[in-house]
Amino acid sequence: MTTTTAVTLADATREVGVEIDRQFDRLLTVPDDPRADLYRAMRHAAIGGGKRLRPLLTFATANLFGVDRSCTARAATAIECIHVYSLVHDDLPAMDDDDLRRGKPTVHKAFDEATAILAGDCLHALAFELLTHPDTHPDPFVRCELVADLARASGPSGMAGGQMMDLRAASASFDIATVTRLQAMKTGALISCAVEAGAILGRLPVEGRTSLRGYARDLGLAFQIADDILDVEGDEAAVGKALHKDADAGKETFLSLLGLERAKEQAAMLVEQAIAHLHAFGAEADLLRQIARFVLERDR
Amino acid sequence: MTTTTAVTLADATREVGVEIDRQFDRLLTVPDDPRADLYRAMRHAAIGGGKRLRPLLTFATANLFGVDRSCTARAATAIECIHVYSLVHDDLPAMDDDDLRRGKPTVHKAFDEATAILAGDCLHALAFELLTHPDTHPDPFVRCELVADLARASGPSGMAGGQMMDLRAASASFDIATVTRLQAMKTGALISCAVEAGAILGRLPVEGRTSLRGYARDLGLAFQIADDILDVEGDEAAVGKALHKDADAGKETFLSLLGLERAKEQAAMLVEQAIAHLHAFGAEADLLRQIARFVLERDR
Repeated sequence: MTTTTAVTLADATREVGVEIDRQFDRLLTVPDDPRADLYRAMRHAAIGGGKRLRPLLTFATANLFGVDRSCTARAATAIECIHVYSLVHDDLPAMDDDDLRRGKPTVHKAFDEATAILAGDCLHALAFELLTHPDTHPDPFVRCELVADLARASGPSGMAGGQMMDLRAASASFDIATVTRLQAMKTGALISCAVEAGAILGRLPVEGRTSLRGYARDLGLAFQIADDILDVEGDEAAVGKALHKDADAGKETFLSLLGLERAKEQAAMLVEQAIAHLHAFGAEADLLRQIARFVLERDR
Repeated sequence: MTTTTAVTLADATREVGVEIDRQFDRLLTVPDDPRADLYRAMRHAAIGGGKRLRPLLTFATANLFGVDRSCTARAATAIECIHVYSLVHDDLPAMDDDDLRRGKPTVHKAFDEATAILAGDCLHALAFELLTHPDTHPDPFVRCELVADLARASGPSGMAGGQMMDLRAASASFDIATVTRLQAMKTGALISCAVEAGAILGRLPVEGRTSLRGYARDLGLAFQIADDILDVEGDEAAVGKALHKDADAGKETFLSLLGLERAKEQAAMLVEQAIAHLHAFGAEADLLRQIARFVLERDR
């Protein structure tokens, strides 16, 4: 049973990874003009790396409602566009100043800062262009809802707002409530959006989304606690980026506030809670359950 | 007649300026949390400055079709969000490295680089969030078309792609065709989008938009030639930003390629051509005609 389950998640991860790379490859054909480096920089950031956690969540959720896979692939790629753009901008010298990402030089190292800023901006715009195309969903109401949800999740009340709080974290002494809010915005909002997109594509009415939203919220927090633990216990080569940055910067994290043991317990409890939200679903939600468990076990 | 006309454009410019400031003020309430500086930075960039050319074009076009003013205001503000975000990012040290914008310190000077990057990203996301709200238009098809058009105009085939070409302009020797394409992308695409948004809100079918598109294209080029001329002949205090930057960087511009006299003739011809595209419209298009003439006469 465990073996079958593990294979299923591994298969889904591989399939989704191939599909997202295929979408980016199609979207980002390098033009024969002075914008060539801009496209090369987007490809460098977007293709062939990452866990593709958010696309995987969109596929796993959309699958509950039998959504067409090519529609799901477009929506999932749009969300990954936003995730990738945020990594490119967060890695800039003025922000987190990182040289390594997904085991490769960051975009401003491989190219230059101006190209990195513009590559991020372009991936940001492409996300919305992708969602508005009729191939993403025949009903403009659905496309519009996807755009609204993604714009909210990535803006000042979501991801970018959370990053701003994170920049302030080094000079402030945030308590556990503030760190929870920061992380719910910085990483949670886009993870929730990835699940929500599957529900939107599946035309699940808003009042039916409570349990999936609960799942996404708990999963997002568990993911972030696991990330904090990886930052302390992880292996840089496996994770593919610089570690121990939060402690070095004097930022409060779940780990610094709870300690390692309680942080691990808290993450495990959140994963169980996330899975419990799926009680109304049968075996069709097994992939979502496996993703939740994977969040605890991952080494990158 | 001339006096009446001048008053009308001046009135419209003032009214649109007040309305756009009001919209930004409403959208950008400073929260009492660690994101306060992020919102202050967005307000610094967005409120109380600029010619508001793009919003003015959206209002003037939407007015041809009797569009509700509050819908137009939201769409126009979304387009101005994108314009403002592009100024914030273009001014960064890694890009054009400007200290002055609209007579005030640029965002990274008044705040810091990280805040400027994030403020730009947030304005980018807010543009799309604004467009998807049902208050912008009751029909999701119209909202979706607005988002699609703005995403295309601002991404790698539009504004951001043009900025990338512009960054390469200093080390290349672009001919007039390449400079025209660069400018059609860098500034023309968003100016065209501002006109198109008025037509979309007015539910003008695509096949009816040819003349308005012609107007916008010619206006955009005339605007850029006038900008090149201002860069050489303008007064820094009136323009509110550093001038003579293109020549100092060794970039080819319309001016360097055509010379001052021919550049002025070309701009005047494009303005006449833009106005000629409006022949099917009566007095209701006078504001669009006045905007086109203003482009030649502006001193900032």
